[in-house]
Amino acid sequence: MSELEQRLVRLVASVRLASAPAREAARSELDMKTKPRGSLGRLEEIAAGIAAARGTASPGPLRATVVVAAADHGIAAEGVSAYPQEVTAQMLANFATGGAAVCVLAKAAGADLVVVDAGVATALDLEGVRSVPIVRGSANATKGPALTRDDAVRAVLAGADLAEELTLSGTTVLGLGEMGIANTTVAAALAAALLGRDPEALCGPGTGVDVDGVTHKVAVVRAMLAANEPDPADAIGCLAAVGGCEIGFLAGVALGGAARDSVVVLDGFISSVAGLVAASLAPGFTSHAVASHLSPEPGHAIVLERLHLRPVLDLGLRLGEGSGAALALPILAAARDILVEMSTFAAAGVTDTGR
Amino acid sequence: MSELEQRLVRLVASVRLASAPAREAARSELDMKTKPRGSLGRLEEIAAGIAAARGTASPGPLRATVVVAAADHGIAAEGVSAYPQEVTAQMLANFATGGAAVCVLAKAAGADLVVVDAGVATALDLEGVRSVPIVRGSANATKGPALTRDDAVRAVLAGADLAEELTLSGTTVLGLGEMGIANTTVAAALAAALLGRDPEALCGPGTGVDVDGVTHKVAVVRAMLAANEPDPADAIGCLAAVGGCEIGFLAGVALGGAARDSVVVLDGFISSVAGLVAASLAPGFTSHAVASHLSPEPGHAIVLERLHLRPVLDLGLRLGEGSGAALALPILAAARDILVEMSTFAAAGVTDTGR
Repeated sequence: MSELEQRLVRLVASVRLASAPAREAARSELDMKTKPRGSLGRLEEIAAGIAAARGTASPGPLRATVVVAAADHGIAAEGVSAYPQEVTAQMLANFATGGAAVCVLAKAAGADLVVVDAGVATALDLEGVRSVPIVRGSANATKGPALTRDDAVRAVLAGADLAEELTLSGTTVLGLGEMGIANTTVAAALAAALLGRDPEALCGPGTGVDVDGVTHKVAVVRAMLAANEPDPADAIGCLAAVGGCEIGFLAGVALGGAARDSVVVLDGFISSVAGLVAASLAPGFTSHAVASHLSPEPGHAIVLERLHLRPVLDLGLRLGEGSGAALALPILAAARDILVEMSTFAAAGVTDTGR
Repeated sequence: MSELEQRLVRLVASVRLASAPAREAARSELDMKTKPRGSLGRLEEIAAGIAAARGTASPGPLRATVVVAAADHGIAAEGVSAYPQEVTAQMLANFATGGAAVCVLAKAAGADLVVVDAGVATALDLEGVRSVPIVRGSANATKGPALTRDDAVRAVLAGADLAEELTLSGTTVLGLGEMGIANTTVAAALAAALLGRDPEALCGPGTGVDVDGVTHKVAVVRAMLAANEPDPADAIGCLAAVGGCEIGFLAGVALGGAARDSVVVLDGFISSVAGLVAASLAPGFTSHAVASHLSPEPGHAIVLERLHLRPVLDLGLRLGEGSGAALALPILAAARDILVEMSTFAAAGVTDTGR
């Protein structure tokens, strides 16, 4: 086994199930708070999930970082996106200067934002963007693998390294965001490969292609799968087959975050496919994950169902770039506050009828 | 017409439709931001709604206050709640000391909290609670009107006075919360009266009664309506017939807030019935309103549908006290930030394909 693969094995082995005792202790604590049992609905489940991920029923105030990873994809040459490939780099610049939606939403949530060039086609020198390019744009997967197997592993490990760095400096919640022209097509191909599902169920309008565009996407995804015949049981092989760097990187952030007791917040379809890669490698990952929202991209619901995650929000968001993850962060913070800061019946002197 | 009724007429007349030009200008502005058109889904609608309520497509940072109004209800004597009446006063004390859910959630959202005794059965002297009791607990509406007509008007006017005070000191978003043992029964009766609906459709478990309890509630609501025969076209008459002080007070907060260009955020079933009273008096009110969430209480969806409001969250919250309104505030703040702080395609130098 190569040294790269050995590092991956160690990373995967470090992801354990979130703490069931902490989850149970949090539920008991919530039942003593001054409110009818269960009356805060899913906010209570979210609070218990945070306790499980953090390994304690009294987690400290959450500190969130949204990681936006960007990359380009050779498949863009097949005309699957409403936008030209140059937009990936332009949006990276927009992230760097604070004008993009995720910048505004992360700031509103009091979260840090880390922007990563995980493999944009042209090298960029942008202040505030971390340059960790695995390759300068993946290959066109209709003609062979998008990435080498080693590069797929490198992408995951680079993401895990970032998660380690961020958690060591205090981050306890990691939001996953992505940018990459054509990456809904890549995500659909990857989900189809991992789930063994027909591409038709997983392809949608993305950032705005029309019905004919979706039909074309389905054909392109079929061609990507036909050219590579990925094995559903080999998540790294699937990632190498269809790409892309940002999805592999985010899968690594997810695994590295889960290994270090972080809550990992998925955004839309593409970042959820990164979560699917993480869960395929380490099934314990999902016990650390929160699905921030449900997008109208048809593959999203399918992926979340496989991950057994219920979305927190359902607002028709279909932008990606971590926008939905950032938007849900205040709800996670509120759930933690309910668990830790609310009075119990006993402390407040309120009559508890046990309901 | 009495002086009280004249003041009410002036209040109602001061509620105008939210600004359609500001809403349209906000939509145009959102279409120029660096994202595919409409890709932030309902967040864009919420932003346009804030612009309409505030009367400008460039609203300043939102300043939110959650108003929790509490009162007691004679109908509690009919055994319609899982909790004894003393809990209203106990919870008011819990609000005052910061231990209740709404305290924690308002704080998490950076919102102010104003707690109002609008008619708790026993006089309280609690620091941090405003005492504006209309009556010391309403009468048992199965035996006649819960409130006199004058007291019903007084409750609405007192709420509008508070809204005026808060908006004059900078509040631009008013969240509506309530507390009052037995007030889901009161709200169900009021909604049944205003909507002309069968009580069975509007009664649910509230804070936690069982199936037999719900059946009993339906019978009590029928008795309340039979004893008073309220006229659906007379919202004040309906309010007087079944109560209660906190619902009337919140209807006044809603009207007073809307009259002064605030966004008014409904919470669960009971505060939404207050919104229904406000809309029955001044139909323009709903154009200033946001439904923060959908509770499982069956009447809630019916009331929101009549108000043509789609809930922002759907998390199974059924606590009331403004908890859902507080939880949704960060989403409103984020929507405003997207509208005002995000870059346009032109400013960011990002290629716009018009999708």
